[in-house]
Amino acid sequence: MKVTVHRKAHFNAAHRLYNPKLDDERNRQLFGKCANDNYHGHNYDLIVSVRGNIDPETGYVIDMKVLKDIIRTEVEEPFDHQNLNLDVPEFSELIPTAEHIAVVIWRRIRARIHEQYELKVTLYETQRNFVEYDGK
Amino acid sequence: MKVTVHRKAHFNAAHRLYNPKLDDERNRQLFGKCANDNYHGHNYDLIVSVRGNIDPETGYVIDMKVLKDIIRTEVEEPFDHQNLNLDVPEFSELIPTAEHIAVVIWRRIRARIHEQYELKVTLYETQRNFVEYDGK
Amino acid sequence: MKVTVHRKAHFNAAHRLYNPKLDDERNRQLFGKCANDNYHGHNYDLIVSVRGNIDPETGYVIDMKVLKDIIRTEVEEPFDHQNLNLDVPEFSELIPTAEHIAVVIWRRIRARIHEQYELKVTLYETQRNFVEYDGK
Amino acid sequence: MKVTVHRKAHFNAAHRLYNPKLDDERNRQLFGKCANDNYHGHNYDLIVSVRGNIDPETGYVIDMKVLKDIIRTEVEEPFDHQNLNLDVPEFSELIPTAEHIAVVIWRRIRARIHEQYELKVTLYETQRNFVEYDGK
Amino acid sequence: MKVTVHRKAHFNAAHRLYNPKLDDERNRQLFGKCANDNYHGHNYDLIVSVRGNIDPETGYVIDMKVLKDIIRTEVEEPFDHQNLNLDVPEFSELIPTAEHIAVVIWRRIRARIHEQYELKVTLYETQRNFVEYDGK
Amino acid sequence: MKVTVHRKAHFNAAHRLYNPKLDDERNRQLFGKCANDNYHGHNYDLIVSVRGNIDPETGYVIDMKVLKDIIRTEVEEPFDHQNLNLDVPEFSELIPTAEHIAVVIWRRIRARIHEQYELKVTLYETQRNFVEYDGK
Repeated sequence: MKVTVHRKAHFNAAHRLYNPKLDDERNRQLFGKCANDNYHGHNYDLIVSVRGNIDPETGYVIDMKVLKDIIRTEVEEPFDHQNLNLDVPEFSELIPTAEHIAVVIWRRIRARIHEQYELKVTLYETQRNFVEYDGK
Repeated sequence: MKVTVHRKAHFNAAHRLYNPKLDDERNRQLFGKCANDNYHGHNYDLIVSVRGNIDPETGYVIDMKVLKDIIRTEVEEPFDHQNLNLDVPEFSELIPTAEHIAVVIWRRIRARIHEQYELKVTLYETQRNFVEYDGK
Repeated sequence: MKVTVHRKAHFNAAHRLYNPKLDDERNRQLFGKCANDNYHGHNYDLIVSVRGNIDPETGYVIDMKVLKDIIRTEVEEPFDHQNLNLDVPEFSELIPTAEHIAVVIWRRIRARIHEQYELKVTLYETQRNFVEYDGK
Repeated sequence: MKVTVHRKAHFNAAHRLYNPKLDDERNRQLFGKCANDNYHGHNYDLIVSVRGNIDPETGYVIDMKVLKDIIRTEVEEPFDHQNLNLDVPEFSELIPTAEHIAVVIWRRIRARIHEQYELKVTLYETQRNFVEYDGK
Repeated sequence: MKVTVHRKAHFNAAHRLYNPKLDDERNRQLFGKCANDNYHGHNYDLIVSVRGNIDPETGYVIDMKVLKDIIRTEVEEPFDHQNLNLDVPEFSELIPTAEHIAVVIWRRIRARIHEQYELKVTLYETQRNFVEYDGK
Repeated sequence: MKVTVHRKAHFNAAHRLYNPKLDDERNRQLFGKCANDNYHGHNYDLIVSVRGNIDPETGYVIDMKVLKDIIRTEVEEPFDHQNLNLDVPEFSELIPTAEHIAVVIWRRIRARIHEQYELKVTLYETQRNFVEYDGK
């Protein structure tokens, strides 16, 4: 009996989309006002989804308190009220698009939960733009 | 042409998480304040998802009035404004975690719709914790 | 320059509507399935609204961290994952309707914030039923 | 690294469910008040989901500005503030149920994006009734 | 102790904005695509707000079952799945803008509840456009 | 017949809370992680509320297309995807708390609409923190 459990979290951060290998004009073409020099920001909503068997002793797939703690230490503490470009090491190499942020969050959480679980993350940059990554 | 149709419903219920095979201290460790003696409760939001072919006569996968009636008799009437532990027979044996409630609802609805349909249920215990079960 | 600031919180609780001065039949007439013996429950959403002048040093009407702490100690800790009828002293005398819960919360918070502020509370029992109380 | 990106859009339209091959009584049985002569209407919310590889130059699966323009020309301009039965050519042959509207939207967008992408559309007719179509 | 209680309802309807005293060109200037000949439609969300004293016997300002019935007979049955211009008598004289619909609903409900209560209605035409009317 | 009409808009921006007249330690005490050097950001949701009489020719309190244009030129264009501290002139003097942002937006819109209208703005910094200002 496989069930998927979902936990919602969120963080508020600044970012800017800019590819340092390209010139300013090309960045402006690709990213529009998302490339503005002084950063802008978002309230990111995150859904972490874990699929696995129900443990007969607890009736849980995974203890939500444990999952909540992993999300707090891997995502909320390092990302909330930060500048993603300047304060999160992975984004010194990767442009912090919603796609890349989702991949980075997936990798951080994947490293902390047992391999018996399948993992997916959904990241809302705004209520109209959101992305999903499941490691495949 | 397979389409998935979703119908949202809800019910308000009391419950308590407690495994009678374990002692009180272990229950408190596992379930925290969810194990409190006098119950607590939730507004449960339910999404029932049915996948199948479009009927060319109606343009429907399934008549929503029929699906709505099944949800009302199988879920809303027996669960709404009830105590899940005390008033719903399945939970005399199963701890009423969101995972188990989703499985119980899936079984009740599965028994009432034609086998040509695939079925999934999504149950929101709160806006931050929700689960999905599709019978696999 | 008066501004109203709002802070959202929530708690999950069991309750039952029953007036002990009336007989069971009259209770059933008045409260329907809300009078069921074994309790039911809700995810209560709460908005606490404080109106006052902006402090020129901080740009705040009230420090949200202070307001958040007051809500936690006066409402979330005593109400969350509890049975309102059995576990919250005020409801040994008052039927825990949404109206009365809002009044009780308003009194608890009113006692903790400076009289220069106006206070209103909005309590959502479900997404379709909610109430407001401002002490007038 | 495959990621799914989602873009939300909406349109407001009138429609009526009626199968001209059947008599009025049968239409009334099948569609109830959805068959009313003078039309009714909805605020349709649409989510367009595109799955593909992240482009290393941009960090994007697809440029959202491009996807947004496709949705505007293929869905919003021809559907918004229109009568689906009378003003959208596909529905001279198809009953405009949520299922058929989703299929029509999927076909219109499928014709405009590269075959390397997988495509799914989710259409909300109301907050309680919604459908998904992915071309399979 | 005055409390305001709110009850949410909804209806789906077609309408068109057109002033028959003006010519087509002026109507098109004033109402844009809202003037389209074949109607369009909306999912209207309605909040009915009643302010009064708490009844000490019930803990209620007003019995929600009574208010719900009034909303059903005065608004949902006559408006839902209808064409406001053609099927609701008040709009043979009034353009069915959100403002006028709110006023019409307010008058219908005002006639059905005791004068001791204050009444306000809030009508959402879309999630971005909504109006309030309180009879003043 | 006075009606209040509401229009929702939004913008995404970076900001930082810091009072240059105070030292870093005091700023950190007052503003916590909101004072971080490299900025953070939010998806701000804005509701602009205008109260006035219904125009009998149009059935409108105010033409929403006009109000939408005012919001675009006064708020969305100068604030969206900007750094409030660095890119919006008013915040060279004012700390960009939600309270101050609401006051600045109110003044900008007040200057553009006729004095016959009452004006209120509601600004959501997150779904849990929001403020209202009506010029009183």
